[in-house]
Amino acid sequence: MKAPEKFVFSFGSKISEGNATMKSLLGGKGANLAEMSSLGIPVPPGFTISTEICNLFFEHGEKVPENVKAEILKALAKVESELGRGFADIANPLLVSVRSGARVSMPGMMDTILNLGLNDQTVEGLAKKSQNPRFAWDSYRRFIQMFSNVVLEMNPSLLEVVLEDLKEEKKYKSDAEFTVEDLKYLVQEFKKQVLDQRGIKFPSDPHEQLWSAINAVFKSWNTGRAITYRKLHDIPESWGTAVNIQAMVFGNMGEGSATGVAFTRDPSTGERKFFGEFLPNAQGEDVVAGIRTPQPISKVKTGEESLEEYMPESYQQLVDIYKKLEKHYREMQDIEFTIERGKLWMLQTRTGKRTAFAALRIACEMIEEGLINEKEALLRIAPTSLEQLLHPTLDSKAKKTLLTKGLPASPGAAVGEVVFTSEEAELLKANSKKAILVRIETSPEDISGMVAAQGILTTRGGMTSHAAVVARGMGKCCVAGAGECYVDYNKEELRVNGYLIKKGEIITLDGSTGEVFLGEVKTVEPTPGIHFEKMMKLADKYRKLNVRANADTPLDAKIARNFGAEGIGLCRTEHMFFGPDRIDVVREMILAEDREDRIKALDKLLPMQRSDFVGIFSEMEGKPVTIRFLDPPLHEFLPHSEEEIAALATRLGKDNSKLGARIEALKEFNPMLGHRGCRLAITYPEIYMMQARAIAEAVVLVMKKNIKVIPEIMIPLVATHKELQILRAQVESEVQSVQKEQNTKFDYLVGTMIELPRAAVTAGEIAESADFFSFGTNDLTQTTLGLSRDDAGRFLGSYVNGGILPTDPFVSIDVEGVGVLVKMGVDLGRRSKPNLKVGVCGEHGGDPASIDFFHKVGLNYVSCSPFRVPVARLAAAQAALREVAAQK
Amino acid sequence: MKAPEKFVFSFGSKISEGNATMKSLLGGKGANLAEMSSLGIPVPPGFTISTEICNLFFEHGEKVPENVKAEILKALAKVESELGRGFADIANPLLVSVRSGARVSMPGMMDTILNLGLNDQTVEGLAKKSQNPRFAWDSYRRFIQMFSNVVLEMNPSLLEVVLEDLKEEKKYKSDAEFTVEDLKYLVQEFKKQVLDQRGIKFPSDPHEQLWSAINAVFKSWNTGRAITYRKLHDIPESWGTAVNIQAMVFGNMGEGSATGVAFTRDPSTGERKFFGEFLPNAQGEDVVAGIRTPQPISKVKTGEESLEEYMPESYQQLVDIYKKLEKHYREMQDIEFTIERGKLWMLQTRTGKRTAFAALRIACEMIEEGLINEKEALLRIAPTSLEQLLHPTLDSKAKKTLLTKGLPASPGAAVGEVVFTSEEAELLKANSKKAILVRIETSPEDISGMVAAQGILTTRGGMTSHAAVVARGMGKCCVAGAGECYVDYNKEELRVNGYLIKKGEIITLDGSTGEVFLGEVKTVEPTPGIHFEKMMKLADKYRKLNVRANADTPLDAKIARNFGAEGIGLCRTEHMFFGPDRIDVVREMILAEDREDRIKALDKLLPMQRSDFVGIFSEMEGKPVTIRFLDPPLHEFLPHSEEEIAALATRLGKDNSKLGARIEALKEFNPMLGHRGCRLAITYPEIYMMQARAIAEAVVLVMKKNIKVIPEIMIPLVATHKELQILRAQVESEVQSVQKEQNTKFDYLVGTMIELPRAAVTAGEIAESADFFSFGTNDLTQTTLGLSRDDAGRFLGSYVNGGILPTDPFVSIDVEGVGVLVKMGVDLGRRSKPNLKVGVCGEHGGDPASIDFFHKVGLNYVSCSPFRVPVARLAAAQAALREVAAQK
Repeated sequence: MKAPEKFVFSFGSKISEGNATMKSLLGGKGANLAEMSSLGIPVPPGFTISTEICNLFFEHGEKVPENVKAEILKALAKVESELGRGFADIANPLLVSVRSGARVSMPGMMDTILNLGLNDQTVEGLAKKSQNPRFAWDSYRRFIQMFSNVVLEMNPSLLEVVLEDLKEEKKYKSDAEFTVEDLKYLVQEFKKQVLDQRGIKFPSDPHEQLWSAINAVFKSWNTGRAITYRKLHDIPESWGTAVNIQAMVFGNMGEGSATGVAFTRDPSTGERKFFGEFLPNAQGEDVVAGIRTPQPISKVKTGEESLEEYMPESYQQLVDIYKKLEKHYREMQDIEFTIERGKLWMLQTRTGKRTAFAALRIACEMIEEGLINEKEALLRIAPTSLEQLLHPTLDSKAKKTLLTKGLPASPGAAVGEVVFTSEEAELLKANSKKAILVRIETSPEDISGMVAAQGILTTRGGMTSHAAVVARGMGKCCVAGAGECYVDYNKEELRVNGYLIKKGEIITLDGSTGEVFLGEVKTVEPTPGIHFEKMMKLADKYRKLNVRANADTPLDAKIARNFGAEGIGLCRTEHMFFGPDRIDVVREMILAEDREDRIKALDKLLPMQRSDFVGIFSEMEGKPVTIRFLDPPLHEFLPHSEEEIAALATRLGKDNSKLGARIEALKEFNPMLGHRGCRLAITYPEIYMMQARAIAEAVVLVMKKNIKVIPEIMIPLVATHKELQILRAQVESEVQSVQKEQNTKFDYLVGTMIELPRAAVTAGEIAESADFFSFGTNDLTQTTLGLSRDDAGRFLGSYVNGGILPTDPFVSIDVEGVGVLVKMGVDLGRRSKPNLKVGVCGEHGGDPASIDFFHKVGLNYVSCSPFRVPVARLAAAQAALREVAAQK
Repeated sequence: MKAPEKFVFSFGSKISEGNATMKSLLGGKGANLAEMSSLGIPVPPGFTISTEICNLFFEHGEKVPENVKAEILKALAKVESELGRGFADIANPLLVSVRSGARVSMPGMMDTILNLGLNDQTVEGLAKKSQNPRFAWDSYRRFIQMFSNVVLEMNPSLLEVVLEDLKEEKKYKSDAEFTVEDLKYLVQEFKKQVLDQRGIKFPSDPHEQLWSAINAVFKSWNTGRAITYRKLHDIPESWGTAVNIQAMVFGNMGEGSATGVAFTRDPSTGERKFFGEFLPNAQGEDVVAGIRTPQPISKVKTGEESLEEYMPESYQQLVDIYKKLEKHYREMQDIEFTIERGKLWMLQTRTGKRTAFAALRIACEMIEEGLINEKEALLRIAPTSLEQLLHPTLDSKAKKTLLTKGLPASPGAAVGEVVFTSEEAELLKANSKKAILVRIETSPEDISGMVAAQGILTTRGGMTSHAAVVARGMGKCCVAGAGECYVDYNKEELRVNGYLIKKGEIITLDGSTGEVFLGEVKTVEPTPGIHFEKMMKLADKYRKLNVRANADTPLDAKIARNFGAEGIGLCRTEHMFFGPDRIDVVREMILAEDREDRIKALDKLLPMQRSDFVGIFSEMEGKPVTIRFLDPPLHEFLPHSEEEIAALATRLGKDNSKLGARIEALKEFNPMLGHRGCRLAITYPEIYMMQARAIAEAVVLVMKKNIKVIPEIMIPLVATHKELQILRAQVESEVQSVQKEQNTKFDYLVGTMIELPRAAVTAGEIAESADFFSFGTNDLTQTTLGLSRDDAGRFLGSYVNGGILPTDPFVSIDVEGVGVLVKMGVDLGRRSKPNLKVGVCGEHGGDPASIDFFHKVGLNYVSCSPFRVPVARLAAAQAALREVAAQK
């Protein structure tokens, strides 16, 4: 693709040394600028310094190698020649932008410098050339602000204060009122501040500015916030960023100038319409930063003036270009443009972020339009994004007190306590409370708070503001630009339309309408829409993994079926034990002093368990149901406080102190590794016998309703094949007793969890007594890593942040460690019993990366929480498609 | 070897169809009887029903197949013809013994019937033929007692009561006073009892007696006590027992008759002398059962009449035979003989059980005698038996109150509470208390109590009594036949020489002298003797595994070196933290509120740790020392009761309730899987840095004493290679700082524990940062099996007894589960770093079966508790020798 020694790639109207396939070398932005120039689309000329230099930069003590510098100057000369301007030319200065550009878009995370090349001389040249001194000086003061912040690492508020002070002194309401003299004063004051704070003269040599800016962009690859974002999005450090240097064009050259961003389809709904915003007489950063509320590009019903009306020619040109781009890229595009005195320049095109709802509609419609095929469509949807379609929306019938209406920036509903800082949002989350993060506007520093919050409300900025873009990416509810709100960070309060809302008070957001309500509003079940259904059917067509749900009650089972679960992969019987009507009977059973007493208590539990199973079997209408026998340590069912123990003693008619001693005796040092799972049944066989009987009797009852059930009985925490052998025999004997008593026959399976390393290692022998395996990857992760899920919170965060573990191993399966044991378990099990059915029922069953792994090792099914079922169906399809692609 | 259809093998003076190599088919006893007849040694004629029939017996509903029965009758005819007597012949009856005989000796575990063939008619024939009606009727009543007990499964006390009643009525002092009429009365009464209790007539047909007896022997293979013994000695059920049917000879035919047992060398000391006991006018069972106290075979100083004096001819014949047998078997023999009216018959020869002390002496001397070679000698010593040589003996200077003196049946010293039943011994053991089991005599029912007790005291029986033989096998201290003692089981008391000792009071046994002392007597270090040293040197010559010790203090290190440890494989630094002078400093460090405070506390710990290491390095004089960095959860170091916390708060000058809250916050649900091991150092790097510095500074100090130390720094609980990478870098930086400060250089290793399944699975990557691995098989067992050592007590016993696990996996490594991960860890580690040093430092490092496994997987060393070092040295030699043998 590239000549071995080439590190700098030019683009423009006359030349295009790169193309869209070179994203890893040129970054997304650079590759697309090159691609656009190849397509004959007007792009301000410039060049891209490749991502390879980023790694070299850090390897060589944060310096750009000399040979690369030479290449850069050559490329700069080409730009000068194309535009007929000169870099550092006092009379006819070329100004450039310096931007980062990684392989994937990292919005707002990397630093950008505009108007580079200005100094006290060139500003005059620009003023003359543009015949607009105010524009020239405004550009200059903006450049100094940006450069001071990004390159000189000054706190931006230092210069902001100077500007605000002047505004107050002059009683200006907006920046637009600054005169040339004001701007000259600001430039002078800014430079003074730089000297005071940083002890250096603001660099006036454009070349010095250029080298410093390039260094700053590379350095920004390794700032804390970039690292956080990379971690959040699984972007390897080694990818690096490219640097794009491009001739400046100006949307702020007065009348006939504008700047804007647009999407080739509606990023919220997916509707096929040209959708975007622009600001007349502004620089591009003004739109993205959300400081001014922008106007729509296409004509809409509202009274605001659209670009279509304001500049019909440029608009038409833009429409032609967006169509060309979408057709070319076969994907919805997010484009940036600037109109400089009537001349349209395209600054950027990239794949547009969208809501899950929009992603589904776009994918479905692009298939219909013949733009992409089914497989491409499936691979384009981020599986976890589907969750946002499945979460409740606000109940339309609920009584609501509307506070205000902002922009519907990211759909969904969110209820929570108002907080004004990221720290507070994280604090509430840590205490299992829900937060709504309220900010005037958000910045990359707020990402951790946005992650922690239920929803985000901003008072400034549009649909493409930082808050909106990031929230949509996260699938998080966001109302943006709610301009009626007044936020006072110091007093920690939000004032809106006469209401005063203090920190900690509850509000509700509707991200689909932009409405903000006082207090908590009731929510209703989501309706994911027809495109969701279509895409799910497509996923089902391509996936090989079956998808089941973890469900313990008939209600859970119903939700799971509605989401397309093909069975229940994990029905935890102990959850049934916690019911208020039965917990005391369970306790009676646990505290029984002998077998006889235990059996008496179990006899009382039998009809309750039987009716549980009748309910679930009926709901599942013949789909497979895997029932896990009692698993947790018995101590979990017992009361712990003295009052509760005394009350229980009274209820059971037992001696208080004896009961207390018994409960104490059942305590364990490491309950995770204690007397639980099948170990309980080895010691007290009657427990599993009762459960086996309850299942068998339930099957008979349901069979009378003409529902055929093949129950799958699952024995947990098996460490040795003998355990399973013994317990299987007991279960079989009990089920056969019921069959004899009821004079009927039915099929059933007996299998086991593989959730201990020993079980994985001896899976061959275990398989001899098992009809199926289900990997309990939660416990397998705990034992394989020697990591208690309940205790790891104290240090797991620092492990993931420190790169010791790639991700939280309880969220995404630890492929290198736990995964090796899973693979071993599957292989040994199948070697011993080729038709062994194998699934997974840990939390990982709903995690796309884990699902990809489970597909690869050849599981038959994954089982996950009901709301994750659609995620799992899509992830399973993607895994199958990726495998086919990899084999080609 | 055998014709395919042969199941019954004859032996006698004219025929010998088997030989000593056929133990698996004929059992030990049968094979040796056949071998003895081949050697021309006088053996009463008989035949052996092979062990194959035992399995067939159980497979065919506990019946002997008809074709085998026919073979048996043929073999019986051969016996009749050799002796000229007839089975069931009224005039000249042949009586037989029916005995079990498994592949290995199971003393007392299997049932025996003597005098079979007697009934109301044949008894008269025997009386006439022997001209001794009293002998005939006494044999008959004995036969009925034995048959009723073993075959008819009657409680033996039912007939015993009849006998005792008669004795009381007649005012007899011993059974010898019974007249013929008395015996006839007893026979009649016994039969009546059988009819009453079992509802059947006592079988009078000798053939019916024979078939029932054979069945009973086979059945006895699967009684509870046989199963317990098999489990205790790892004897597979499938081996089965043979049945030996042999013509009866009589040691109780009056004057000129005797019976006895003997060892070809002294089983207590190993001295090369003919050693044994006999009873004149008695049957063999009388000696073994220990009911009468027997006389010595060879002339000794004591006044008792020896066989040598009593029957010089038979004695000389016996001496010739024992020499022949020992030379033939090249092993010390345990022989049984009977002299019937001056004619010597050999009843049995087998490998003699012996004390560890004797085993070593015998092995050494047999090498010197040229009887066996070094390898054979090494393989003959049970490694764990060495421990009895290493345990303390009584302090000769201690003040003692002698209660009585019995026989020195099994050496060693034991202190404990007096108990009178096995159940009580087990109960005390379960409560970590020490028991001395005091019995009139022991029986196989007492084995579990003997296992649980510290020592055994019997009031009857000799050096070859059940108690003595079993105790020696177990390496357990035993004083037998302490006839001055009176035991009252009902009152639970022991009366001896005016002392009254109640259950629960403490006594002390000296198994080497036979003395019994009141209360607890001080013990002293053992002196294992020259043969021990010789054998250990031999073991060192053949073993390939190095043997290190786990030692935390200079004293431990000294003991370990004395036992031949080649280094320290595990020095646990946390044990040093518990010292009374430093625990508060450790707590200060743990409870520090910030890094600065923590470093202050660590600075106080530094000199203490440094002096610890100086002590250990000095003691080990250049031998390798592996130091494990802080491992346990911090909570373990903190006080837990309110009073202790309050006291600590005062000492540290902290707020009581704040301190309590801090301690509470450090609690973990599953501390085994919590914030411990290297995880502590990831969070608080300064802890390991301090430890690294303490080691480095200690090395420098010790180097000044001209001792070269290469410390091995071991990082515990590594789950990911990144942890080790990070911590290794920190350790290296700290050690290098010390080297720079002290202007010196020294070598050191940094390695890791492999104690989590994930570490084993990713050992390849981990090895990249490790100079050595040490398998922490304790924790690896806990995590692989998901089994908390602290909690498993509740059910692990039933797991082992129920055959779910072959042995306690914390005692002997779980080869099929944990072993797979160990092998994987070794293989992956060495693949990545071929010269990687690999050892083990869990409890398994001192367990012979585990050592065999560690040898096989190619570890470099094992490390175990100091007292286990000799065991490990021998076990390692045996592993190497067995491997060579297996390769041949």
